[in-house]
Amino acid sequence: MDSATTAALAHADGFDVFPLSFKYGQRHAVELVAAQRVAAQLGLRAPAVAELDLRAFGGSALTSDTAVPKDRVEAAGSTEIPVTYVPARNTIFLSFALAYAEVLGAYDIFIGANALDYSGYPDCRPDYLEAFEQMANLATRAGRERPGSIRIHAPLVTLTKAQVVQRGLALGVDFGLTRSCYDPSPEGEACGHCDACTFRLKGFREVGLTDPAPYAER
Amino acid sequence: MDSATTAALAHADGFDVFPLSFKYGQRHAVELVAAQRVAAQLGLRAPAVAELDLRAFGGSALTSDTAVPKDRVEAAGSTEIPVTYVPARNTIFLSFALAYAEVLGAYDIFIGANALDYSGYPDCRPDYLEAFEQMANLATRAGRERPGSIRIHAPLVTLTKAQVVQRGLALGVDFGLTRSCYDPSPEGEACGHCDACTFRLKGFREVGLTDPAPYAER
Repeated sequence: MDSATTAALAHADGFDVFPLSFKYGQRHAVELVAAQRVAAQLGLRAPAVAELDLRAFGGSALTSDTAVPKDRVEAAGSTEIPVTYVPARNTIFLSFALAYAEVLGAYDIFIGANALDYSGYPDCRPDYLEAFEQMANLATRAGRERPGSIRIHAPLVTLTKAQVVQRGLALGVDFGLTRSCYDPSPEGEACGHCDACTFRLKGFREVGLTDPAPYAER
Repeated sequence: MDSATTAALAHADGFDVFPLSFKYGQRHAVELVAAQRVAAQLGLRAPAVAELDLRAFGGSALTSDTAVPKDRVEAAGSTEIPVTYVPARNTIFLSFALAYAEVLGAYDIFIGANALDYSGYPDCRPDYLEAFEQMANLATRAGRERPGSIRIHAPLVTLTKAQVVQRGLALGVDFGLTRSCYDPSPEGEACGHCDACTFRLKGFREVGLTDPAPYAER
């Protein structure tokens, strides 16, 4: 829901969107299929898919056989980093996006990072994203030639999930096509109990709506 | 030669070295075989190999069918960025190393970046490496818990190639096992004419030695 809303926002702001998906050894490919459907529904190009293998390093419940935790009471507002944290994941994703941007001749990179209703991941916070942007301008031909021209946009970074729902709906995002669950069924049904489902369901509840995505249980 | 000398330096300084190689869609796998031989000769672990596909983005002579330029007179001291520059390559490599470090519980990342006898790549310069280090400390659990604890070490960054040769030899590096060429033969012979060969051969010449690596022509 964060990526879809971010793509819709960039599109509405007049950016020519080149979606980028990642096949990174996650437990399921449900989100890759969802990304294609979302892009089609928003009238965007089909996503490019970058392949990389993070399973070689292990270290996360999202890329190994460690169980995804369910119904964590301490999820919201926690400062503890949970086992679903994938080491340096956003840094790797943003680095690929930076390479893709440089090849395209693009200067603007959008990411749906969300620092409020998140799980305590260090690489979703504004100070991290600003540091990445500074580094990106020193790393690239474009940034060297036009200092400060590479911009990392995280338009949802200070929004609650409820606000993401409202923003997305206003832009015509079909949340029934989006998937957030860390541990979906092979058929693509959300589990309803992992941190991602918990935050998402709470967001819809707070605005008095029912999440149109399929759940095994909720 | 830069990576091998850097690994030898880290080892000599008492670090427990976990070598990391990249299979990134480069035109040849010669450097992957060389990395294994170098690690064995230095008494280090076999390198972990991270796989990623940069060919999907194109944009460089090192990952596409664009010809590698030969005998460039403007190579040394040029401010122009040549076609062998792979967009955001060191950023992607360092991001993978950061993920690997976080999984290992390591804080020190070594890279053989070299800002003097290089080809004008933006992501080899000290200010870039410092910006990456700052970002890395905000990106990770380790950096959040112990601010400034993640260190990016680039011990060759201000050395000439001649100094790299001397440093490596003093540490027992067998440069006959190392490969630098951008466009080697299938048998692993260096071309002798690309920027990497030009800088390397000049480095050996300046210290009055013959490069022990195999060349098709020099």
